[in-house]
Amino acid sequence: MEGSVQCDANYAPLTPLSFLERAAIVYGTRTAVVIGEREYSWRETRDRCLAGASALARLGVGRRDVVAVLAANTPAMYELHFSVPMTGGVLCTLNTRHDASMVSVLLRHSEARVFLVESQFGAVARDALAMLSSAGASLPLLITIATDGDEGTDGEPEYEALLRTAPGGFEIRWPADERDPISLNYTSGTTSRPKGVIYSHRGAYLNTLATALSNEMPTMPVYLWTVPMFHCNGWCMVWATAAQGGTSVCMTGSVSPKVVFEKIVRHRVTNMGGAPTVLSMLVNAPASEQMPLPGRVLISTGGAPPPPHVLAKMDELGFNVIHGYGLTETYGPATLCVWKPEWDALPAAERARIRARQGVPHVMLDGVEIKDPVTMASVPSDGHTVGEVMLRGNTVMSGYYKDAAATAEAMRGGWLRSGDLGVRHPDGYIQLKDRSKDIIISGGENISSIEVESALFGHPAVLDAAVVARPDDHWGETPCAFVTLKDGAKATEAEIVGFCRERLPRYMAPRTVVFAELPKTSTGKTQKYLLREKARAMGSLPKQGRSKL
Amino acid sequence: MEGSVQCDANYAPLTPLSFLERAAIVYGTRTAVVIGEREYSWRETRDRCLAGASALARLGVGRRDVVAVLAANTPAMYELHFSVPMTGGVLCTLNTRHDASMVSVLLRHSEARVFLVESQFGAVARDALAMLSSAGASLPLLITIATDGDEGTDGEPEYEALLRTAPGGFEIRWPADERDPISLNYTSGTTSRPKGVIYSHRGAYLNTLATALSNEMPTMPVYLWTVPMFHCNGWCMVWATAAQGGTSVCMTGSVSPKVVFEKIVRHRVTNMGGAPTVLSMLVNAPASEQMPLPGRVLISTGGAPPPPHVLAKMDELGFNVIHGYGLTETYGPATLCVWKPEWDALPAAERARIRARQGVPHVMLDGVEIKDPVTMASVPSDGHTVGEVMLRGNTVMSGYYKDAAATAEAMRGGWLRSGDLGVRHPDGYIQLKDRSKDIIISGGENISSIEVESALFGHPAVLDAAVVARPDDHWGETPCAFVTLKDGAKATEAEIVGFCRERLPRYMAPRTVVFAELPKTSTGKTQKYLLREKARAMGSLPKQGRSKL
Repeated sequence: MEGSVQCDANYAPLTPLSFLERAAIVYGTRTAVVIGEREYSWRETRDRCLAGASALARLGVGRRDVVAVLAANTPAMYELHFSVPMTGGVLCTLNTRHDASMVSVLLRHSEARVFLVESQFGAVARDALAMLSSAGASLPLLITIATDGDEGTDGEPEYEALLRTAPGGFEIRWPADERDPISLNYTSGTTSRPKGVIYSHRGAYLNTLATALSNEMPTMPVYLWTVPMFHCNGWCMVWATAAQGGTSVCMTGSVSPKVVFEKIVRHRVTNMGGAPTVLSMLVNAPASEQMPLPGRVLISTGGAPPPPHVLAKMDELGFNVIHGYGLTETYGPATLCVWKPEWDALPAAERARIRARQGVPHVMLDGVEIKDPVTMASVPSDGHTVGEVMLRGNTVMSGYYKDAAATAEAMRGGWLRSGDLGVRHPDGYIQLKDRSKDIIISGGENISSIEVESALFGHPAVLDAAVVARPDDHWGETPCAFVTLKDGAKATEAEIVGFCRERLPRYMAPRTVVFAELPKTSTGKTQKYLLREKARAMGSLPKQGRSKL
Repeated sequence: MEGSVQCDANYAPLTPLSFLERAAIVYGTRTAVVIGEREYSWRETRDRCLAGASALARLGVGRRDVVAVLAANTPAMYELHFSVPMTGGVLCTLNTRHDASMVSVLLRHSEARVFLVESQFGAVARDALAMLSSAGASLPLLITIATDGDEGTDGEPEYEALLRTAPGGFEIRWPADERDPISLNYTSGTTSRPKGVIYSHRGAYLNTLATALSNEMPTMPVYLWTVPMFHCNGWCMVWATAAQGGTSVCMTGSVSPKVVFEKIVRHRVTNMGGAPTVLSMLVNAPASEQMPLPGRVLISTGGAPPPPHVLAKMDELGFNVIHGYGLTETYGPATLCVWKPEWDALPAAERARIRARQGVPHVMLDGVEIKDPVTMASVPSDGHTVGEVMLRGNTVMSGYYKDAAATAEAMRGGWLRSGDLGVRHPDGYIQLKDRSKDIIISGGENISSIEVESALFGHPAVLDAAVVARPDDHWGETPCAFVTLKDGAKATEAEIVGFCRERLPRYMAPRTVVFAELPKTSTGKTQKYLLREKARAMGSLPKQGRSKL
């Protein structure tokens, strides 16, 4: 329009780095990150990020250079989310549960130039580097992040020492284009070769603010870190806490109900996230460990919908649960079950049924549809026609690093294909039915493993459950349930099967129940492919084990 | 980065239109707009917007065509904020207080193609068109928006009738580029020729979400409209209520405390805005009209900082006041006085002193600085060095329509020059001292009219006050106060002057006090230029009226 201009006064590439700059001014003396007794103010955090960027730049990190990190939820990990992009570099956080072999694969694929490793993960890192070395691949520069003040003794550069000696006056290298990469997040690889998901400054900026809104973050929230920061950059909460001037409460060691309740009370936590197992852990904790909360705590969760009794108990304990759904490819949660006040008056079972939905797109995602993957037609909003969940918008990844074919395949037709199956209800809310590969086909009928799991979770003795296909000579496949019982609780296979048959069509009830601990990824997801292998190894049910459908 | 792509799956131009699409799905059956007894759901609102866009497109409105509107805060006015951009057109809302002459100037300057006029403003519109016609200028097509169900009788197209007869199946013309114009907002023109401020889809989108965050809007807020929608598109609240699935409560007729309290209680209002006069009106209303609120109401205000006793009383009544600052050029409020919990414990006077600051940039504005307008150096953050308030970021206008020279001048040096003078405090918060032209220079000393006004507002009899320069043969200028007393309250000039002298350096206290109603713009700003003219007409203070400095 005549008179319109674009200049420094009215245009700046969108980047989460701006949140830190503002936080240092607006919230300068308030606590940005706390771990144990150590607190860092926003001004300190910004100074430390600048020093980190200066040190990395001096070590040669420049635009689009990948900096890999293997660290727990610590102040250093938090800071690297800003200091690496400040150099123009790309942050690649690795799953701390990976073994040396996987780490070496990812270092090689990402071509990381620098590799920061918290000393507790030093052995894995060194083994990974040895593998790279013996394969003749080039090695990243190793920097140690000393755990608990241990300064590292192997002559490698150490993070705190680098900060102390970094040249002052570093000038932030703002992205030239907001679509420039900010981070590289490898998918967890439960089912296939890990893929490097590229996040952009623009996407991270927008998803961060959408997350702050959808989590109803107040100004100056207090966020408790149970979600690993290495996972989708902590669902973008690393940046959201900066945008809102919040405090990040880190935890050392493993997540236990006792510590979670203690941290919530001590720091007056307002927001947190957690896999369904975290919710389960909190409600099943001994009453002596459950403390009255200082205020309502909003907890966002994803994955399998929490069963009704868990939701009811969470509410009683003082938590507001928001159930969402997302992928590494969508910067974390992309849909959420926005709760309507008019639903408060519904019966508990009905409320739980609605709460189990994955819901609607957050405010910055342009669309979620359930589509036929071939015709791309949207399924009717009838609550039962199954299609593939597809998403589009600015908070969908830029692509898979060095994998144009996989990128094109994932975005074929102008939508991100999730590989998940779901339905859309008449009110527009979506509900997941299963991963395509998790559907069990028995006698020609599709069985959603999620629905069978929901029934199992209703059993008072069941702590955790997962259902996969067991091969069957007659039916093709039958549902096989892996179940973990609560401490001290007892149940037999027959009881569990009977319980499900009262609640599900007969063909959907499990034919096999295995009592076991379920294998989990570090983000709390059940590794169904391992269970599927076990079920496959069992072979077909013997004929006498069969009953009529 | 290798593997990055840009396609429909991961890129869409940012536009507030996406909020309506989502609201119609997520909040479909909930109330979007309510006026009197009539409620429109989000689905209806979206259908009406589509019909409006279809009708406008059929009338020839296409990309970048300007559609002017003269209307109060009504459902039609709300809908036009979506339906006009849906056609690719640019919405130009006019101040309903303008006279026919000003309306004709703006229609001509904007080259409006269509002009929608609520029937209560029909006479002004017709006079304006007659002026255009007699000047030989081309005329926009007039569409009547019938007030209160009156369907318009003059044979012109009428809004509701157009919606009913619009062809179905209209396809939204999404912006090709997110920097495309969405609206044109003429500055109020209290001091100079009105300028047409261009807003872009991108800027409106970002400012909308920043506003939702800075106003701590919950999901599904209830917003009471006291701010005119024609003013900076209602501070972007038209779009923010869509983004958050909120309800817009419109008011017919003039704003009175009785109606405001009634609407808050009836609709359980969560958020509202209001000029300082609205706050003043609410706290000074008879106790019989003040009703207990159903919950805390967040009210954002701008302009002169509310005096301490008003803030204290507002708090008591149940309002959380957020004081902000912005320009038409920044899509409305750009800074806000973010309140820190640690300030709650300060003495009341100290709290009021802090609350009076304009504060810090909202989360999507990249910077606010107090600068020397010549050297562009930032002043020290010492709380007393005065400089010009300058702003930059994506929520700064695209430019002034058809005025490249004014655009370049306003953004010279890569910052938007506000023309306002202020200081920055050591904690980073800015505080306005005055408009450049409102500074009074007396005996070579700069006097901030805002500081003198703050002192005046502390007087228990003072309802409203404004201070301007009165020419003086000896001092150059002296402060002249225009004061409105509260109903039934009494005070003499000498008392007022004495009160100020106890609280201000002697040279800053008013030398003249005039008791009068203050002239206001429709957005509640005092029209100081009219007062300045009056003070000028008084001439120099007679010698005997002088006292030693």
